[in-house]
Amino acid sequence: MSTKKYKGFEPKWIKTVAPEGSYRSIFRWGDPEFFKWPKESLYNLMKDTFKMTDDDFKQYNDDIGFDKVENLGRSCKLAKEHIDALKEIVGEEYVTTDDYARLSVAYGNTAYDLLRLRHKRIDHLPDVVVYPDTTEQVEKIVAYVTKHKIPLYVYGGGSSVTRGVEPMKGGITLDMRKRFNKVIKFNEVDQTITVQAGMSGPKLEETLHNAPQLFGAKRAYTCGHFPQSFEYSSVGGWVVTRGAGQNSTYYGTIADIVLSQRYATPIGVIQTSHYPREATGPSLNQIMMGSEGTFGVLTEVTLKVFRWMPENRKRFSYMFKNWEIAMKAAREMMQCECGYSSVFRLSDPEETSLMLKLYNVDDTPLAPLLDKLGYKDMERCMFLGFTDGEKGYSANVAKNIAKIALKNGAIPMTGYVTKSWEKGRFNDPYLRDTLMDFGICTDTLECTVNWSNMAQVHRDVRKVCHALPNTVVTTHMSHCYPQGANLYFIFITKMSDEEEFKAYHTTILDAIQKSGAAISHHHGIGKMFAPWLEYSLGEKEYGVFRALKNYFDPDYNLNPGGTIGLDLKPEEKRNMLNK
Amino acid sequence: MSTKKYKGFEPKWIKTVAPEGSYRSIFRWGDPEFFKWPKESLYNLMKDTFKMTDDDFKQYNDDIGFDKVENLGRSCKLAKEHIDALKEIVGEEYVTTDDYARLSVAYGNTAYDLLRLRHKRIDHLPDVVVYPDTTEQVEKIVAYVTKHKIPLYVYGGGSSVTRGVEPMKGGITLDMRKRFNKVIKFNEVDQTITVQAGMSGPKLEETLHNAPQLFGAKRAYTCGHFPQSFEYSSVGGWVVTRGAGQNSTYYGTIADIVLSQRYATPIGVIQTSHYPREATGPSLNQIMMGSEGTFGVLTEVTLKVFRWMPENRKRFSYMFKNWEIAMKAAREMMQCECGYSSVFRLSDPEETSLMLKLYNVDDTPLAPLLDKLGYKDMERCMFLGFTDGEKGYSANVAKNIAKIALKNGAIPMTGYVTKSWEKGRFNDPYLRDTLMDFGICTDTLECTVNWSNMAQVHRDVRKVCHALPNTVVTTHMSHCYPQGANLYFIFITKMSDEEEFKAYHTTILDAIQKSGAAISHHHGIGKMFAPWLEYSLGEKEYGVFRALKNYFDPDYNLNPGGTIGLDLKPEEKRNMLNK
Repeated sequence: MSTKKYKGFEPKWIKTVAPEGSYRSIFRWGDPEFFKWPKESLYNLMKDTFKMTDDDFKQYNDDIGFDKVENLGRSCKLAKEHIDALKEIVGEEYVTTDDYARLSVAYGNTAYDLLRLRHKRIDHLPDVVVYPDTTEQVEKIVAYVTKHKIPLYVYGGGSSVTRGVEPMKGGITLDMRKRFNKVIKFNEVDQTITVQAGMSGPKLEETLHNAPQLFGAKRAYTCGHFPQSFEYSSVGGWVVTRGAGQNSTYYGTIADIVLSQRYATPIGVIQTSHYPREATGPSLNQIMMGSEGTFGVLTEVTLKVFRWMPENRKRFSYMFKNWEIAMKAAREMMQCECGYSSVFRLSDPEETSLMLKLYNVDDTPLAPLLDKLGYKDMERCMFLGFTDGEKGYSANVAKNIAKIALKNGAIPMTGYVTKSWEKGRFNDPYLRDTLMDFGICTDTLECTVNWSNMAQVHRDVRKVCHALPNTVVTTHMSHCYPQGANLYFIFITKMSDEEEFKAYHTTILDAIQKSGAAISHHHGIGKMFAPWLEYSLGEKEYGVFRALKNYFDPDYNLNPGGTIGLDLKPEEKRNMLNK
Repeated sequence: MSTKKYKGFEPKWIKTVAPEGSYRSIFRWGDPEFFKWPKESLYNLMKDTFKMTDDDFKQYNDDIGFDKVENLGRSCKLAKEHIDALKEIVGEEYVTTDDYARLSVAYGNTAYDLLRLRHKRIDHLPDVVVYPDTTEQVEKIVAYVTKHKIPLYVYGGGSSVTRGVEPMKGGITLDMRKRFNKVIKFNEVDQTITVQAGMSGPKLEETLHNAPQLFGAKRAYTCGHFPQSFEYSSVGGWVVTRGAGQNSTYYGTIADIVLSQRYATPIGVIQTSHYPREATGPSLNQIMMGSEGTFGVLTEVTLKVFRWMPENRKRFSYMFKNWEIAMKAAREMMQCECGYSSVFRLSDPEETSLMLKLYNVDDTPLAPLLDKLGYKDMERCMFLGFTDGEKGYSANVAKNIAKIALKNGAIPMTGYVTKSWEKGRFNDPYLRDTLMDFGICTDTLECTVNWSNMAQVHRDVRKVCHALPNTVVTTHMSHCYPQGANLYFIFITKMSDEEEFKAYHTTILDAIQKSGAAISHHHGIGKMFAPWLEYSLGEKEYGVFRALKNYFDPDYNLNPGGTIGLDLKPEEKRNMLNK
């Protein structure tokens, strides 16, 4: 949230809590009482870029959704006997066919979802929403839907940007937020915590910080997993989509952090093993992760936990002369074996330019100084981060990063930039809602590359983005490895039609597939990315997923309707690889 | 090899190169011209333990196998048309039905194999041995055996201790040693190397050390993977069994080191992706690893490589007062987030006692001094290792290890002990052959545990071992993680009958399964451990492997006869979990 007053005209940003039961209360992000609007510099940039005037910000472009969700005209199609059976399992009050409850679990958080909700376009609704309390209840529900061939969906935190939660075939949605979010076991000897899959990020982190008070632990811990969606994402969502947090360069992605999982599947309970490594055939943990609710419903997860030692954290930021040098330096940092930085984030020139505006650096003497030194706007690249771990480890990582940055001609920018970034790290989604009120749409796409194809993917994908009208595309890498990194594209565009957005999204994903990058580093696949999956992996390779699906859920009752491409028709699949 | 002369009687250890074409040339380990025999202290210990006298070492207990392999009386049952077809694929001279060639790929290196070979007991032989040269040839062979339903086995380095290579159904064995061991690509930008699956450990490491000369690289690299079997193991074997090297605590197991894999399967080529992480469904890399030749034949592997910086290595060793304190300290070292030691090896009291004999510490004033200080024989625990990585990283790990060891009352023992261990790290298998000549059998079993069940597993398994007659059982952990470690049991026993050995092995594996540990940390499953696998993982969990098998190789032509339990009969499976 900007605290600075605008010098010029300030749009009527919505700063009112969305009414209870309203559409807006569903489609806006997170904390109802938190608001964020752009700094004046960003506001001006958008006016310039999108050829808008103050007048365009005098009225809302879209329905702002303050009206109540009611009379959706979609009656529950599930027979009363099924509803009764569900009530029998979870308790009368934890089964509902209420319109608001149903709509609130029908969409995730891609712009396609938000625009549809703003337009009151309801493509799919569950017939009934169920709030389970225990693993046993979920297991009974899965057995029940299997027997009666009822579609079953799961809503964790709802932060999916891939239409992962959308109930394409109606049926039942399990809303995990209300009750399925408890700690099952904390084990300080093994440094693990076992939780129900609906556990939210903040509640998990708070629990671990308070381990001494809650569990009599010797110290405080952290989960190490902080996606941008942290505040409204769930552990289960992290796991089934193979998510990654912004500190993954040190802590690993969720695929590294998970120790074991329990699933309720149509063939019964699947409990993966809980050893750090083993040589007992294919890894069942790595088979279940990424299944996105199609093999079974994740009920319990045991996560590795880490020591909470913020006192050892070293913040840093550097400005590199250009993207090529910056990539080379980042690679050296990842390959030199000095340990890994926790946050490790390198912005390309366009993102750097935008960041300097956002962080008000453009208004300071630093901007012209950088220019003078040859670190020019739209060439220079901002690199920032902080280290974690034991004191000596953390210091050694920061020391080596400094050494490599300086050797590559970077200018130290102090920890100020990093702190500015930290302030906004979890609340950019609020800004997105504010901009959408005026017809400006922001969304993201991301992929994984090896170092050797990074420059090419960056160039190819951005070229396609820039050929699209009215687009700002910023790019960074934020999850880095000795063999490569993710590339994360944020696009801001003047757009308010969901189908226009979908076509736009498709064009970029086509470019990512064509470039040879992995089509998702940590957002998962869901239903929105599914058309690209089979050809990206290879048809025979992809066939493995279908074989697994046929083992676990041969009747396709779990998250049906395209999730990870399992029930797509041939004509729905996209293949840009030979084009 | 002991260079010290024996003071007393010295047995007639075999120090003669086994004749070419002999049984011994097959069953003895490794370099034909290298020999190792026990130090006098160990010799005396064995006499004491097994109630043997010098007289028992005057003649060989077993057939020492100097006679030529010939007239095995097992003619090739494969039709001439098939042999011709194979010759068509790989070339006339690379297909053989020669007895020696066939026997040399029929066994691995468990004592069960070696004893059978010493007794000229030949249970299974391939009908024909083929030496492929290219990936394309292997793909053609897999297509051919699929079409004609011919069993196909692969022999990489032959160091399997799980009967992984044994051709239970005859057919074809691909011997990868001769030609399928080439470098395909070295990529310094991504720090990867792609090799054919038959590449041997030493050739790979030598290649990487010589990267500047061979590839014009900027520096030398290391593969980071050094199992005890290093000298005669293959990259393919490491990968398909999910092996781990002795430096895995820093470099990771092979499951961490592999970036991508290519397999020739009955349904065609499977190429896994080459990104450091991705969120595109279940991990195909982690599905193929551990398949042990049952889903396809591994043809090409891309491995991450590491910088070769031995100048940064810090050696250390410490003596802890007892196992309980030592386990606690080791856990703290793994959980304190200071980085990870490369070699990290903690021996239990019985192993420590043996090591002090082997390293001649028992003859020095140190031994009584340790006793006097309260670090008593059969209570004290030896901990040793060395660090790797960038200079500051390596130093920080060593510093923290020292701090934690001292805080837990350990006595520093200098790098001498570590160096002694290093000298023998790859050549203990030679000692094994020497002892077998006199009816003393050594073998190993290992498992994974979490920290919280380590004491119990250690106690339970050792109790069972000690109830067996004439047994020395030493235990260490050598692959450690924040959430647990492996436990590695070495047993030395007076035994020369293979069925007696098998029963003995079964008893210990029963104990491991019953204890709740993972039945293999890095040896894999093969055919020997297969009976325990299904019940250890759970029946529904195990069913996933069968579903995958049915997708890749529905006719069960690849490594058939029990590998990872896929074609075991119900009565062949073992379940000790509820006993």
